Amino acid sequence: MGGVSFKDDPTAKGFFAPLRFEATLIDCEVEGDIPAGLNGSFYRSCIDRRYPPRFPDDTPYNSDGAVDLFRFTNGHVDFRSRYIQTPRLKAETAARRALFGRYRNRGTYDPSARDISPNTGNTTPIIHHGRLFSFKEDSPPMAMDPDTLETIGEWDFHGQMRAKTFTAHPKIDPNTGDMIAFSYEAKGDVSPDLAVFVFDKHGKLKREWWIKAPVVSMMHDMAITDRHIILPTTGMVTNQERLDAGLIHWTYDSSVPCHVAIIPRDGDDKDVRWFHGTPEQAMLVHTTNARTEGNKVILDAPVASNNFHPFFPNADGSAFDVSGVSPNIRRWTFDLDSKDTGWKEEVLFGGLRGTSMVRMDDRYLTRPFRWSYMLVVDPTLPFDRERGGKLSVRVANSIFRFDHHTGAIDRLSAGNTHSLSEPQFVPARPDAPEGEGYILTVANDYSEMRSELVIADAMRLGDGPIARVKLPFRLHTQVHGWWEPQEGFLTGFRPR
Amino acid sequence: MGGVSFKDDPTAKGFFAPLRFEATLIDCEVEGDIPAGLNGSFYRSCIDRRYPPRFPDDTPYNSDGAVDLFRFTNGHVDFRSRYIQTPRLKAETAARRALFGRYRNRGTYDPSARDISPNTGNTTPIIHHGRLFSFKEDSPPMAMDPDTLETIGEWDFHGQMRAKTFTAHPKIDPNTGDMIAFSYEAKGDVSPDLAVFVFDKHGKLKREWWIKAPVVSMMHDMAITDRHIILPTTGMVTNQERLDAGLIHWTYDSSVPCHVAIIPRDGDDKDVRWFHGTPEQAMLVHTTNARTEGNKVILDAPVASNNFHPFFPNADGSAFDVSGVSPNIRRWTFDLDSKDTGWKEEVLFGGLRGTSMVRMDDRYLTRPFRWSYMLVVDPTLPFDRERGGKLSVRVANSIFRFDHHTGAIDRLSAGNTHSLSEPQFVPARPDAPEGEGYILTVANDYSEMRSELVIADAMRLGDGPIARVKLPFRLHTQVHGWWEPQEGFLTGFRPR
Repeated sequence: MGGVSFKDDPTAKGFFAPLRFEATLIDCEVEGDIPAGLNGSFYRSCIDRRYPPRFPDDTPYNSDGAVDLFRFTNGHVDFRSRYIQTPRLKAETAARRALFGRYRNRGTYDPSARDISPNTGNTTPIIHHGRLFSFKEDSPPMAMDPDTLETIGEWDFHGQMRAKTFTAHPKIDPNTGDMIAFSYEAKGDVSPDLAVFVFDKHGKLKREWWIKAPVVSMMHDMAITDRHIILPTTGMVTNQERLDAGLIHWTYDSSVPCHVAIIPRDGDDKDVRWFHGTPEQAMLVHTTNARTEGNKVILDAPVASNNFHPFFPNADGSAFDVSGVSPNIRRWTFDLDSKDTGWKEEVLFGGLRGTSMVRMDDRYLTRPFRWSYMLVVDPTLPFDRERGGKLSVRVANSIFRFDHHTGAIDRLSAGNTHSLSEPQFVPARPDAPEGEGYILTVANDYSEMRSELVIADAMRLGDGPIARVKLPFRLHTQVHGWWEPQEGFLTGFRPR
Repeated sequence: MGGVSFKDDPTAKGFFAPLRFEATLIDCEVEGDIPAGLNGSFYRSCIDRRYPPRFPDDTPYNSDGAVDLFRFTNGHVDFRSRYIQTPRLKAETAARRALFGRYRNRGTYDPSARDISPNTGNTTPIIHHGRLFSFKEDSPPMAMDPDTLETIGEWDFHGQMRAKTFTAHPKIDPNTGDMIAFSYEAKGDVSPDLAVFVFDKHGKLKREWWIKAPVVSMMHDMAITDRHIILPTTGMVTNQERLDAGLIHWTYDSSVPCHVAIIPRDGDDKDVRWFHGTPEQAMLVHTTNARTEGNKVILDAPVASNNFHPFFPNADGSAFDVSGVSPNIRRWTFDLDSKDTGWKEEVLFGGLRGTSMVRMDDRYLTRPFRWSYMLVVDPTLPFDRERGGKLSVRVANSIFRFDHHTGAIDRLSAGNTHSLSEPQFVPARPDAPEGEGYILTVANDYSEMRSELVIADAMRLGDGPIARVKLPFRLHTQVHGWWEPQEGFLTGFRPR
């Protein structure tokens, strides 16, 4: 009798092979000194298939979700990883095989799974009102226990959240603790409906908008200012014909322009204003930060000009172009006083080769800020690997710190033996000045196939790690991370 | 602030480094075909330190215990590993450092730990009366849940077991399901008291003997026949002066002879008869099997002629001699009709280089038998590794099957990239003839630092594995293992 085998999955190689196990490790081995006062929890949402996909062209974004927790207590670090026990994972585990099919296409699921939520929760962890959530944009949030990582279940905020989907990138307003979020395809597959929500720090729904998008597209991230909510569309589009044909949900259409909704936080549905850009602006995956100055809304974000997602085909049939994945960091200024439906664009940092995994000091969300941190490929390092056996790209091996005031770049380099993960900024103290703190990033050691959590001084990235939390195994691929300080100063809640 | 570091522990290298994490892996990857009908649970008791030892000369036998479970269900294999949550592990985890000191010497413990049980439970797993036990000979059994591996606690059989210690090698009588066990240093450190117990298949104490040993020595294993219990002493001895001097419990005294107690299972304390051998017979660590024929008691066992334990010093101050670790397989015949207090010795298999990790088809315990299986170093393979940075020995890389009728040897070889663990025999069917079944052994892949469970046809070891259950990480060092069939035919109980 044969058991599970990933030998026919070309993406399951090296560090891209699924981990498939859950681990608990009390008191990780540490090299160097954990900074005094670095007490809190670092969560990572990761992709990790339990069963080989039923379709070889399925995207890794359709993998089961797992959450890692590094908990820091007075220089000691405890590690825990758990699968998110989604209805989907439970059904597949009971069947001991994959039941779901191509990403977001129910027609391709095993008949036994067509009425089961496809939620994987594999994208972003956030702590809010005392709960840990891990989000996947095609489904409601998955709620988990912030200490044990036990899954509570799909979360509709006690019936307050009526949309069928929920963004993986809600924003926590550091001024109020409010969680601002949105849903796209909010009324179901291919629906143009967008819902926008504000939940207060106790999880109570304060405001809700329902609007229509000019295009049904992947809308992965959003931005907020103290007065506005910013929702960009992208060139990743879908339609009923694709789904009926059994194809993967998304295709990249290079003729589709970017549309941006600006929503006044104190306004109604009718106050929403749409701006319209070009197709070269329609590959914004993540935002850095935004602010409102007078009647101008200013957004900084890495934006690519071509298909960012190798696993989603180009609509015109052209092959995936690896150069399309490299965004530059742009500043978009929307003038609310102008009748013009376009916006002003400046390139702040160009010539990058990298990802869109950008973070900043979250205390400065909605406000003027100076620093951002992004996972990039440092092209000066001679590091080249076969990624998933399919796409040859350099592995992201550096964290760049961008100075949005001066244009300067500082860099943490992992050399040519490690890849890195999305940087997590942690303030040195709750009242530390912006950028004074630490960068946490998981480094994957290709030479030993082991992972470690690297801690660097955010003001001296070039000096390299000040501490390394070493694991005796490799880790799965992280999507996004979250730092929750022990005192929970952002949300007013402390993890149990 | 510094975290845990093993960099000063010379034994924590490569596969001898502690694993330190607990894992759950549903549906392991499998190469080859799991034999139909191989349904049940393979347990392994392992050593795995959570904290670096307080004394660099401490024995690995003093490491925390962990239990692994490979559960086979219709060709699927689920894996789980858990630390045994001993009072000792809990105390050290709360303190986030080692509190215990040298092996079995309370005077060397941190004062906060001197009243806490030193139990690690790290030696042998056995299922009996529906419970999983993991034994350590210096303490009572540790009871665990056979499915979840959650620790229940130290076990005194509901108050029936009054000794302070309990062997790591109880025997389950396949005729009755009785568990026959003994305790040495049964009334405390350096006490010459031995207790011998018979528990029925429901865990009820049926018989009990209390006798005195002629020497206070490590008595690691025992043997049973349908009519007798056999208890050998060894040359590993101790005394109060050693303990008072803060030394590790054991020292090897090459002048101490072997003494063997033969206990009639239907007799009283006064019916126990002691036989006396030579110092060259005083290094029996494990037994193979025994039987009573007429008034002769016949024991087969691997026996070395010198110190087997590199971590316990020689009493005469001489250096550890690596050649002492290699036992040959001997047959000892005790004639109960003779007044002679010696016994007859034959060497069944000599010239071996290896361990004393021997197992057989447990259905034939107490009976005439043909096959035994032992973990050995095949000296024809060019494999040499630094073991623990201290002792250079070849890693055990082969399972030999010994034919006790003909003297023939068949062998399963792991070549020069893997080490192997104690073989576990599993019958092909409850009513299969002796030796018809499978050998399970964990192989540690030094080239990739990963482990896998290898399954071979016990009648065709030379053909190599028929299936390999692959783990994405290395495993800790196994001491002993146990197979519990799904139907629990040996004990009449099925694991929950």
